[in-house]
Amino acid sequence: MKETLLTRKTIRKYSGREVTDSDLNDILEAAIRTSTTGNMQVYSIIVTRDAVMKEKLAPAHFNQKMVTEAPVMLTFCADFNRFNKWCRQRDAEPGYDNFLSFMTAAIDALIAAQTACIAAEEKGMGICYLGTTTYMAGIIIELLELPTGVVPVTAITLGWPAEDPPQVDRLPLSAVVHTETYHDYSAGDIDELYAEKEKREDSLQFIAENSKKTLAQVFTDVRYKKADNIHFSKAFLEVLKKQGFMEQDI
Amino acid sequence: MKETLLTRKTIRKYSGREVTDSDLNDILEAAIRTSTTGNMQVYSIIVTRDAVMKEKLAPAHFNQKMVTEAPVMLTFCADFNRFNKWCRQRDAEPGYDNFLSFMTAAIDALIAAQTACIAAEEKGMGICYLGTTTYMAGIIIELLELPTGVVPVTAITLGWPAEDPPQVDRLPLSAVVHTETYHDYSAGDIDELYAEKEKREDSLQFIAENSKKTLAQVFTDVRYKKADNIHFSKAFLEVLKKQGFMEQDI
Repeated sequence: MKETLLTRKTIRKYSGREVTDSDLNDILEAAIRTSTTGNMQVYSIIVTRDAVMKEKLAPAHFNQKMVTEAPVMLTFCADFNRFNKWCRQRDAEPGYDNFLSFMTAAIDALIAAQTACIAAEEKGMGICYLGTTTYMAGIIIELLELPTGVVPVTAITLGWPAEDPPQVDRLPLSAVVHTETYHDYSAGDIDELYAEKEKREDSLQFIAENSKKTLAQVFTDVRYKKADNIHFSKAFLEVLKKQGFMEQDI
Repeated sequence: MKETLLTRKTIRKYSGREVTDSDLNDILEAAIRTSTTGNMQVYSIIVTRDAVMKEKLAPAHFNQKMVTEAPVMLTFCADFNRFNKWCRQRDAEPGYDNFLSFMTAAIDALIAAQTACIAAEEKGMGICYLGTTTYMAGIIIELLELPTGVVPVTAITLGWPAEDPPQVDRLPLSAVVHTETYHDYSAGDIDELYAEKEKREDSLQFIAENSKKTLAQVFTDVRYKKADNIHFSKAFLEVLKKQGFMEQDI
Protein backbone atom coordinates (compact mmCIF):
# COMPACT_ATOMS: atom_id res chain seq x y z
CA MET A 1 0.00 0.00 0.00
CA LYS A 2 2.83 2.35 0.97
CA GLU A 3 4.26 1.58 -2.47
CA THR A 4 0.94 2.46 -4.14
CA LEU A 5 0.80 5.81 -2.38
CA LEU A 6 4.41 6.77 -3.07
CA THR A 7 4.67 5.68 -6.70
CA ARG A 8 1.24 6.79 -7.92
CA LYS A 9 0.76 9.06 -10.90
CA THR A 10 -2.24 10.54 -12.64
CA ILE A 11 -3.40 8.40 -15.56
CA ARG A 12 -5.14 10.09 -18.48
CA LYS A 13 -5.14 7.24 -21.02
CA TYR A 14 -7.11 4.07 -20.38
CA SER A 15 -7.03 0.64 -22.01
CA GLY A 16 -10.11 -1.10 -23.41
CA ARG A 17 -10.19 -3.38 -20.37
CA GLU A 18 -13.56 -3.24 -18.67
CA VAL A 19 -14.04 -1.88 -15.17
CA THR A 20 -16.25 -4.64 -13.81
CA ASP A 21 -19.21 -4.00 -11.53
CA SER A 22 -17.35 -5.97 -8.90
CA ASP A 23 -14.26 -3.73 -9.11
CA LEU A 24 -16.38 -0.59 -9.06
CA ASN A 25 -18.37 -1.91 -6.14
CA ASP A 26 -15.17 -2.56 -4.15
CA ILE A 27 -14.04 1.01 -4.80
CA LEU A 28 -17.37 2.49 -3.74
CA GLU A 29 -17.65 0.25 -0.66
CA ALA A 30 -14.21 1.47 0.42
CA ALA A 31 -15.20 5.09 -0.25
CA ILE A 32 -18.26 4.98 2.01
CA ARG A 33 -16.14 3.78 4.96
CA THR A 34 -14.30 7.14 4.85
CA SER A 35 -14.88 9.39 7.88
CA THR A 36 -18.00 11.53 7.56
CA THR A 37 -19.19 14.40 9.74
CA GLY A 38 -21.37 13.04 12.54
CA ASN A 39 -21.94 9.94 10.40
CA MET A 40 -24.39 12.03 8.35
CA GLN A 41 -22.85 10.93 5.00
CA VAL A 42 -23.81 14.23 3.39
CA TYR A 43 -22.50 13.45 -0.07
CA SER A 44 -23.47 11.46 -3.15
CA ILE A 45 -21.48 9.80 -5.91
CA ILE A 46 -22.80 9.84 -9.49
CA VAL A 47 -21.47 7.03 -11.69
CA THR A 48 -21.15 7.79 -15.41
CA ARG A 49 -20.60 4.86 -17.78
CA ASP A 50 -23.02 5.76 -20.58
CA ALA A 51 -21.27 7.03 -23.73
CA VAL A 52 -24.00 9.57 -24.47
CA MET A 53 -23.76 11.02 -20.98
CA LYS A 54 -19.96 11.24 -21.29
CA GLU A 55 -20.37 13.20 -24.52
CA LYS A 56 -22.76 15.56 -22.79
CA LEU A 57 -20.45 16.02 -19.81
CA ALA A 58 -17.30 16.53 -21.89
CA PRO A 59 -17.79 20.28 -22.58
CA ALA A 60 -18.31 20.87 -18.85
CA HIS A 61 -14.81 19.46 -18.43
CA PHE A 62 -13.32 21.60 -21.22
CA ASN A 63 -13.45 18.58 -23.56
CA GLN A 64 -10.58 16.87 -21.82
CA LYS A 65 -10.31 13.53 -23.63
CA MET A 66 -10.35 11.44 -20.46
CA VAL A 67 -14.05 12.15 -19.97
CA THR A 68 -15.17 10.37 -23.14
CA GLU A 69 -12.31 7.86 -23.19
CA ALA A 70 -12.40 6.58 -19.62
CA PRO A 71 -14.70 3.63 -18.97
CA VAL A 72 -15.99 5.22 -15.76
CA MET A 73 -16.36 8.70 -14.39
CA LEU A 74 -17.36 9.45 -10.81
CA THR A 75 -18.75 12.84 -9.78
CA PHE A 76 -18.61 13.54 -6.05
CA CYS A 77 -21.27 15.91 -4.73
CA ALA A 78 -21.86 17.72 -1.47
CA ASP A 79 -25.39 16.48 -0.71
CA PHE A 80 -27.70 17.62 2.08
CA ASN A 81 -30.82 16.76 0.04
CA ARG A 82 -31.09 13.17 1.30
CA PHE A 83 -30.42 14.18 4.90
CA ASN A 84 -32.91 17.09 4.73
CA LYS A 85 -35.61 14.79 3.37
CA TRP A 86 -35.01 12.34 6.17
CA CYS A 87 -35.21 15.13 8.77
CA ARG A 88 -38.48 16.48 7.36
CA GLN A 89 -40.01 12.99 7.35
CA ARG A 90 -39.01 12.60 11.00
CA ASP A 91 -40.51 15.75 12.49
CA ALA A 92 -37.11 17.51 12.52
CA GLU A 93 -36.43 20.89 10.90
CA PRO A 94 -33.06 20.87 9.09
CA GLY A 95 -30.89 23.99 9.32
CA TYR A 96 -28.42 23.15 6.57
CA ASP A 97 -29.17 25.81 3.95
CA ASN A 98 -25.98 27.71 4.68
CA PHE A 99 -22.33 27.98 3.72
CA LEU A 100 -20.94 26.05 6.68
CA SER A 101 -23.16 23.10 5.78
CA PHE A 102 -21.93 23.28 2.20
CA MET A 103 -18.34 23.10 3.47
CA THR A 104 -19.20 20.17 5.74
CA ALA A 105 -20.78 18.29 2.85
CA ALA A 106 -17.94 19.21 0.47
CA ILE A 107 -15.39 17.85 2.96
CA ASP A 108 -17.36 14.58 3.20
CA ALA A 109 -17.46 14.31 -0.60
CA LEU A 110 -13.79 15.15 -1.13
CA ILE A 111 -12.28 12.77 1.39
CA ALA A 112 -14.55 9.99 0.06
CA ALA A 113 -13.28 10.81 -3.45
CA GLN A 114 -9.68 10.37 -2.36
CA THR A 115 -10.43 7.04 -0.72
CA ALA A 116 -12.02 5.89 -4.00
CA CYS A 117 -8.86 6.95 -5.85
CA ILE A 118 -6.58 5.04 -3.51
CA ALA A 119 -8.82 1.94 -3.61
CA ALA A 120 -8.70 2.08 -7.43
CA GLU A 121 -4.94 2.64 -7.55
CA GLU A 122 -4.34 -0.23 -5.15
CA LYS A 123 -6.12 -2.45 -7.70
CA GLY A 124 -3.73 -1.21 -10.40
CA MET A 125 -6.21 1.16 -11.98
CA GLY A 126 -5.48 4.79 -12.79
CA ILE A 127 -7.38 7.97 -11.99
CA CYS A 128 -7.43 11.61 -13.02
CA TYR A 129 -9.09 14.41 -11.05
CA LEU A 130 -11.15 16.92 -13.01
CA GLY A 131 -10.69 20.35 -11.46
CA THR A 132 -13.20 21.68 -13.95
CA THR A 133 -16.01 20.34 -11.73
CA THR A 134 -16.19 23.48 -9.60
CA TYR A 135 -15.72 25.75 -12.63
CA MET A 136 -18.69 24.31 -14.48
CA ALA A 137 -20.84 23.12 -11.60
CA GLY A 138 -23.97 24.77 -13.02
CA ILE A 139 -23.93 22.75 -16.23
CA ILE A 140 -23.03 19.54 -14.41
CA ILE A 141 -26.01 20.09 -12.09
CA GLU A 142 -28.32 20.27 -15.12
CA LEU A 143 -26.86 17.23 -16.85
CA LEU A 144 -26.79 15.03 -13.75
CA GLU A 145 -30.19 16.39 -12.60
CA LEU A 146 -28.92 17.40 -9.17
CA PRO A 147 -31.68 18.82 -6.94
CA THR A 148 -31.49 21.64 -4.38
CA GLY A 149 -29.00 20.76 -1.66
CA VAL A 150 -26.62 19.00 -4.06
CA VAL A 151 -23.45 20.56 -5.55
CA PRO A 152 -20.69 18.71 -7.45
CA VAL A 153 -17.27 19.42 -5.93
CA THR A 154 -14.94 17.09 -7.80
CA ALA A 155 -14.93 14.30 -10.37
CA ILE A 156 -12.50 11.62 -11.40
CA THR A 157 -12.03 9.47 -14.47
CA LEU A 158 -11.18 5.86 -13.78
CA GLY A 159 -9.89 2.90 -15.77
CA TRP A 160 -7.04 0.52 -16.44
CA PRO A 161 -3.87 2.39 -17.49
CA ALA A 162 -2.80 2.52 -21.15
CA GLU A 163 0.18 4.73 -20.37
CA ASP A 164 3.05 4.77 -17.88
CA PRO A 165 4.11 8.39 -17.64
CA PRO A 166 7.05 9.48 -15.47
CA GLN A 167 6.03 10.54 -11.99
CA VAL A 168 5.72 14.32 -11.86
CA ASP A 169 7.84 16.37 -9.48
CA ARG A 170 6.79 17.69 -6.11
CA LEU A 171 8.22 20.47 -3.99
CA PRO A 172 10.35 19.14 -1.13
CA LEU A 173 8.32 18.07 1.91
CA SER A 174 9.71 21.03 3.84
CA ALA A 175 7.88 23.38 1.43
CA VAL A 176 4.49 22.02 2.46
CA VAL A 177 4.97 21.08 6.12
CA HIS A 178 5.23 23.52 9.03
CA THR A 179 6.10 22.63 12.62
CA GLU A 180 3.89 24.08 15.39
CA THR A 181 3.33 27.43 13.63
CA TYR A 182 3.39 28.57 10.03
CA HIS A 183 6.86 29.71 9.09
CA ASP A 184 6.36 32.21 6.34
CA TYR A 185 8.69 32.06 3.36
CA SER A 186 11.54 34.49 2.82
CA ALA A 187 12.56 35.34 -0.75
CA GLY A 188 15.50 33.01 -0.25
CA ASP A 189 13.22 30.18 0.89
CA ILE A 190 11.09 30.53 -2.24
CA ASP A 191 14.17 30.49 -4.49
CA GLU A 192 15.45 27.37 -2.77
CA LEU A 193 12.16 25.45 -2.63
CA TYR A 194 11.30 26.09 -6.28
CA ALA A 195 14.86 25.71 -7.63
CA GLU A 196 14.58 22.08 -8.63
CA LYS A 197 11.18 22.53 -10.26
CA GLU A 198 12.38 25.55 -12.23
CA LYS A 199 15.42 23.88 -13.68
CA ARG A 200 13.57 20.75 -14.85
CA GLU A 201 13.60 20.06 -18.57
CA ASP A 202 9.78 19.89 -18.72
CA SER A 203 9.48 23.24 -16.97
CA LEU A 204 11.83 24.91 -19.43
CA GLN A 205 9.90 23.38 -22.30
CA PHE A 206 6.64 24.60 -20.77
CA ILE A 207 8.00 28.15 -20.62
CA ALA A 208 9.23 28.01 -24.23
CA GLU A 209 5.99 26.50 -25.58
CA ASN A 210 4.00 29.27 -23.98
CA SER A 211 6.47 32.03 -24.95
CA LYS A 212 6.82 33.15 -21.33
CA LYS A 213 9.78 34.34 -19.33
CA THR A 214 9.16 32.35 -16.15
CA LEU A 215 7.35 29.16 -15.16
CA ALA A 216 5.13 31.16 -12.80
CA GLN A 217 3.90 33.22 -15.77
CA VAL A 218 2.67 30.03 -17.45
CA PHE A 219 0.34 29.64 -14.46
CA THR A 220 -0.76 33.26 -14.06
CA ASP A 221 -1.02 34.18 -17.77
CA VAL A 222 -2.03 30.90 -19.42
CA ARG A 223 -3.27 28.09 -17.20
CA TYR A 224 -4.98 29.73 -14.20
CA LYS A 225 -5.77 33.30 -15.18
CA LYS A 226 -7.24 35.94 -12.90
CA ALA A 227 -10.12 36.78 -15.28
CA ASP A 228 -11.14 33.12 -15.47
CA ASN A 229 -10.87 32.68 -11.72
CA ILE A 230 -13.08 35.71 -11.13
CA HIS A 231 -15.62 34.49 -13.66
CA PHE A 232 -15.79 31.00 -12.18
CA SER A 233 -15.81 32.33 -8.59
CA LYS A 234 -18.97 34.29 -9.31
CA ALA A 235 -20.50 31.34 -11.13
CA PHE A 236 -19.76 28.93 -8.28
CA LEU A 237 -21.14 31.31 -5.65
CA GLU A 238 -24.29 31.64 -7.79
CA VAL A 239 -24.51 27.83 -7.88
CA LEU A 240 -24.27 27.69 -4.08
CA LYS A 241 -27.11 30.21 -3.84
CA LYS A 242 -29.25 28.40 -6.41
CA GLN A 243 -28.70 25.03 -4.70
CA GLY A 244 -29.76 26.52 -1.37
CA PHE A 245 -26.50 26.89 0.53
CA MET A 246 -26.27 30.68 1.01
CA GLU A 247 -29.25 31.48 3.21
CA GLN A 248 -27.25 32.77 6.15
CA ASP A 249 -27.26 36.43 4.98
CA ILE A 250 -23.64 37.41 4.53
CA MET B 1 -4.95 -2.39 1.93
CA LYS B 2 -8.50 -3.26 0.89
CA GLU B 3 -8.86 -4.66 4.42
CA THR B 4 -7.58 -1.39 5.94
CA LEU B 5 -10.11 0.65 3.97
CA LEU B 6 -13.07 -1.59 4.71
CA THR B 7 -12.47 -2.25 8.41
CA ARG B 8 -11.30 1.19 9.47
CA LYS B 9 -12.89 3.13 12.30
CA THR B 10 -12.30 6.50 13.86
CA ILE B 11 -9.97 6.30 16.87
CA ARG B 12 -10.33 8.87 19.63
CA LYS B 13 -8.16 7.28 22.33
CA TYR B 14 -4.43 6.90 21.81
CA SER B 15 -1.80 4.86 23.65
CA GLY B 16 1.40 6.32 25.06
CA ARG B 17 3.37 4.85 22.16
CA GLU B 18 5.35 7.50 20.35
CA VAL B 19 4.65 8.51 16.77
CA THR B 20 8.23 8.51 15.51
CA ASP B 21 9.60 11.11 13.12
CA SER B 22 10.10 8.29 10.65
CA ASP B 23 6.43 7.22 10.82
CA LEU B 24 5.23 10.78 10.53
CA ASN B 25 7.58 11.40 7.64
CA ASP B 26 6.20 8.35 5.78
CA ILE B 27 2.66 9.66 6.24
CA LEU B 28 3.54 13.14 5.02
CA GLU B 29 5.56 11.83 2.05
CA ALA B 30 2.54 9.78 1.01
CA ALA B 31 0.25 12.79 1.44
CA ILE B 32 2.27 15.03 -0.89
CA ARG B 33 2.01 12.45 -3.70
CA THR B 34 -1.76 13.03 -3.74
CA SER B 35 -3.13 14.66 -6.90
CA THR B 36 -2.95 18.46 -6.79
CA THR B 37 -4.44 21.02 -9.16
CA GLY B 38 -1.95 21.77 -11.94
CA ASN B 39 0.79 20.48 -9.64
CA MET B 40 0.56 23.79 -7.78
CA GLN B 41 0.41 22.11 -4.33
CA VAL B 42 -1.67 24.94 -2.95
CA TYR B 43 -1.95 23.63 0.60
CA SER B 44 0.12 23.37 3.75
CA ILE B 45 0.16 20.95 6.66
CA ILE B 46 0.83 22.22 10.17
CA VAL B 47 2.19 19.59 12.57
CA THR B 48 1.29 20.01 16.25
CA ARG B 49 3.21 17.95 18.81
CA ASP B 50 3.88 20.57 21.47
CA ALA B 51 1.73 20.12 24.60
CA VAL B 52 1.35 23.86 25.12
CA MET B 53 0.15 24.36 21.55
CA LYS B 54 -2.34 21.49 21.95
CA GLU B 55 -3.73 23.18 25.07
CA LYS B 56 -4.11 26.41 23.15
CA LEU B 57 -5.80 24.69 20.20
CA ALA B 58 -8.17 22.62 22.34
CA PRO B 59 -10.86 25.32 22.79
CA ALA B 60 -10.93 25.87 19.01
CA HIS B 61 -11.91 22.21 18.78
CA PHE B 62 -14.59 22.48 21.49
CA ASN B 63 -12.18 20.91 23.98
CA GLN B 64 -12.51 17.48 22.42
CA LYS B 65 -10.09 15.35 24.44
CA MET B 66 -8.31 13.93 21.38
CA VAL B 67 -6.62 17.28 20.77
CA THR B 68 -4.62 17.27 23.99
CA GLU B 69 -4.34 13.49 24.27
CA ALA B 70 -3.19 12.57 20.75
CA PRO B 71 0.57 12.57 20.21
CA VAL B 72 0.18 14.38 16.89
CA MET B 73 -2.32 16.71 15.33
CA LEU B 74 -2.19 17.74 11.68
CA THR B 75 -4.02 20.84 10.42
CA PHE B 76 -4.56 20.95 6.66
CA CYS B 77 -4.79 24.41 5.14
CA ALA B 78 -5.78 25.78 1.77
CA ASP B 79 -2.63 27.80 0.97
CA PHE B 80 -2.03 30.16 -1.95
CA ASN B 81 0.48 32.21 0.06
CA ARG B 82 3.54 30.21 -0.99
CA PHE B 83 2.43 30.08 -4.64
CA ASN B 84 1.62 33.81 -4.70
CA LYS B 85 5.04 34.65 -3.28
CA TRP B 86 6.72 32.53 -5.93
CA CYS B 87 4.68 34.24 -8.67
CA ARG B 88 5.55 37.71 -7.43
CA GLN B 89 9.26 36.83 -7.26
CA ARG B 90 9.06 35.61 -10.87
CA ASP B 91 7.51 38.61 -12.57
CA ALA B 92 4.07 36.98 -12.60
CA GLU B 93 0.91 38.57 -11.16
CA PRO B 94 -1.16 35.99 -9.26
CA GLY B 95 -4.96 36.12 -9.61
CA TYR B 96 -5.87 33.82 -6.75
CA ASP B 97 -7.58 36.18 -4.30
CA ASN B 98 -11.02 34.76 -5.06
CA PHE B 99 -13.48 32.08 -4.01
CA LEU B 100 -12.70 29.63 -6.81
CA SER B 101 -9.05 29.67 -5.81
CA PHE B 102 -10.03 29.00 -2.21
CA MET B 103 -12.05 25.98 -3.38
CA THR B 104 -9.13 24.75 -5.49
CA ALA B 105 -6.76 25.03 -2.55
CA ALA B 106 -9.29 23.47 -0.15
CA ILE B 107 -9.67 20.47 -2.48
CA ASP B 108 -5.89 20.05 -2.60
CA ALA B 109 -5.72 20.19 1.21
CA LEU B 110 -8.63 17.80 1.80
CA ILE B 111 -7.58 15.03 -0.54
CA ALA B 112 -4.03 15.22 0.87
CA ALA B 113 -5.56 14.91 4.35
CA GLN B 114 -7.36 11.73 3.39
CA THR B 115 -4.20 10.20 1.94
CA ALA B 116 -2.43 10.97 5.22
CA CYS B 117 -5.24 9.21 7.10
CA ILE B 118 -5.04 6.10 4.94
CA ALA B 119 -1.23 6.01 5.16
CA ALA B 120 -1.52 6.22 8.96
CA GLU B 121 -4.25 3.58 9.16
CA GLU B 122 -2.26 1.23 6.94
CA LYS B 123 0.50 1.45 9.58
CA GLY B 124 -2.00 0.45 12.25
CA MET B 125 -2.41 3.94 13.63
CA GLY B 126 -5.77 5.61 14.25
CA ILE B 127 -7.11 9.00 13.23
CA CYS B 128 -10.01 11.30 14.03
CA TYR B 129 -11.17 14.20 11.86
CA LEU B 130 -11.95 17.47 13.62
CA GLY B 131 -14.92 19.09 11.89
CA THR B 132 -14.53 22.04 14.23
CA THR B 133 -11.69 23.31 12.02
CA THR B 134 -14.02 25.25 9.70
CA TYR B 135 -16.19 26.43 12.61
CA MET B 136 -13.30 28.01 14.46
CA ALA B 137 -10.95 28.83 11.60
CA GLY B 138 -10.42 32.40 12.83
CA ILE B 139 -8.93 31.33 16.15
CA ILE B 140 -6.87 28.57 14.53
CA ILE B 141 -5.42 31.13 12.11
CA GLU B 142 -4.25 33.25 15.04
CA LEU B 143 -2.79 30.34 16.99
CA LEU B 144 -0.98 28.78 14.03
CA GLU B 145 0.05 32.23 12.70
CA LEU B 146 -1.43 31.64 9.25
CA PRO B 147 -0.82 34.56 6.89
CA THR B 148 -3.11 35.97 4.16
CA GLY B 149 -3.87 33.31 1.59
CA VAL B 150 -3.97 30.49 4.14
CA VAL B 151 -7.17 29.00 5.64
CA PRO B 152 -7.44 25.80 7.71
CA VAL B 153 -10.05 23.43 6.26
CA THR B 154 -9.66 20.28 8.32
CA ALA B 155 -7.52 18.73 11.04
CA ILE B 156 -6.89 15.24 12.29
CA THR B 157 -5.56 13.74 15.48
CA LEU B 158 -3.20 10.84 15.04
CA GLY B 159 -1.69 8.14 17.20
CA TRP B 160 -1.54 4.47 18.10
CA PRO B 161 -4.97 3.16 19.14
CA ALA B 162 -5.82 2.59 22.80
CA GLU B 163 -9.37 1.51 21.98
CA ASP B 164 -11.06 -0.88 19.59
CA PRO B 165 -14.59 0.45 19.16
CA PRO B 166 -17.18 -1.36 17.02
CA GLN B 167 -17.30 -0.11 13.45
CA VAL B 168 -20.12 2.42 13.10
CA ASP B 169 -22.97 1.85 10.67
CA ARG B 170 -23.26 3.30 7.19
CA LEU B 171 -26.29 3.72 4.96
CA PRO B 172 -26.46 1.06 2.23
CA LEU B 173 -24.29 1.85 -0.79
CA SER B 174 -27.43 2.44 -2.84
CA ALA B 175 -28.27 5.43 -0.64
CA VAL B 176 -25.09 7.25 -1.67
CA VAL B 177 -24.52 6.10 -5.26
CA HIS B 178 -26.53 7.20 -8.30
CA THR B 179 -26.24 5.77 -11.80
CA GLU B 180 -25.98 8.25 -14.71
CA THR B 181 -28.35 10.82 -13.17
CA TYR B 182 -29.41 11.66 -9.63
CA HIS B 183 -32.43 9.65 -8.64
CA ASP B 184 -34.19 11.72 -6.06
CA TYR B 185 -35.57 9.96 -3.01
CA SER B 186 -39.25 9.19 -2.51
CA ALA B 187 -40.65 9.12 1.01
CA GLY B 188 -40.58 5.33 0.72
CA ASP B 189 -36.90 5.36 -0.31
CA ILE B 190 -35.97 7.43 2.73
CA ASP B 191 -37.87 5.10 5.06
CA GLU B 192 -36.14 2.10 3.56
CA LEU B 193 -32.61 3.54 3.42
CA TYR B 194 -32.69 4.81 7.01
CA ALA B 195 -34.60 1.83 8.49
CA GLU B 196 -31.57 -0.10 9.70
CA LYS B 197 -29.90 2.98 11.18
CA GLU B 198 -33.07 3.97 13.02
CA LYS B 199 -33.65 0.62 14.67
CA ARG B 200 -30.07 0.26 15.95
CA GLU B 201 -29.64 0.03 19.71
CA ASP B 202 -27.18 2.96 19.75
CA SER B 203 -29.63 5.14 17.80
CA LEU B 204 -32.44 4.43 20.24
CA GLN B 205 -30.13 5.20 23.14
CA PHE B 206 -29.07 8.44 21.45
CA ILE B 207 -32.73 9.51 21.14
CA ALA B 208 -33.46 8.64 24.78
CA GLU B 209 -30.33 10.37 26.13
CA ASN B 210 -31.27 13.56 24.33
CA SER B 211 -34.98 13.33 25.21
CA LYS B 212 -35.99 13.50 21.54
CA LYS B 213 -38.69 11.76 19.55
CA THR B 214 -36.63 10.86 16.47
CA LEU B 215 -32.97 10.33 15.61
CA ALA B 216 -33.16 13.15 13.09
CA GLN B 217 -34.12 15.55 15.89
CA VAL B 218 -30.89 14.69 17.71
CA PHE B 219 -29.08 16.14 14.69
CA THR B 220 -31.27 19.18 14.05
CA ASP B 221 -31.95 20.14 17.69
CA VAL B 222 -28.78 19.05 19.49
CA ARG B 223 -25.75 18.20 17.39
CA TYR B 224 -25.91 20.40 14.25
CA LYS B 225 -28.30 23.23 15.02
CA LYS B 226 -29.44 25.87 12.54
CA ALA B 227 -28.44 28.79 14.78
CA ASP B 228 -24.90 27.41 15.16
CA ASN B 229 -24.60 26.71 11.44
CA ILE B 230 -25.66 30.26 10.61
CA HIS B 231 -23.23 31.68 13.16
CA PHE B 232 -20.29 29.62 11.86
CA SER B 233 -21.24 30.25 8.22
CA LYS B 234 -20.91 33.98 8.73
CA ALA B 235 -17.69 33.51 10.67
CA PHE B 236 -16.12 31.31 7.99
CA LEU B 237 -17.12 33.69 5.18
CA GLU B 238 -15.52 36.49 7.22
CA VAL B 239 -12.37 34.39 7.51
CA LEU B 240 -12.29 33.89 3.73
CA LYS B 241 -12.56 37.66 3.28
CA LYS B 242 -9.92 38.40 5.89
CA GLN B 243 -7.52 35.84 4.40
CA GLY B 244 -7.96 37.39 0.95
CA PHE B 245 -10.18 34.90 -0.88
CA MET B 246 -13.31 36.98 -1.57
CA GLU B 247 -12.07 39.71 -3.90
CA GLN B 248 -14.24 38.73 -6.87
CA ASP B 249 -17.14 41.06 -5.91
CA ILE B 250 -20.14 38.78 -5.40
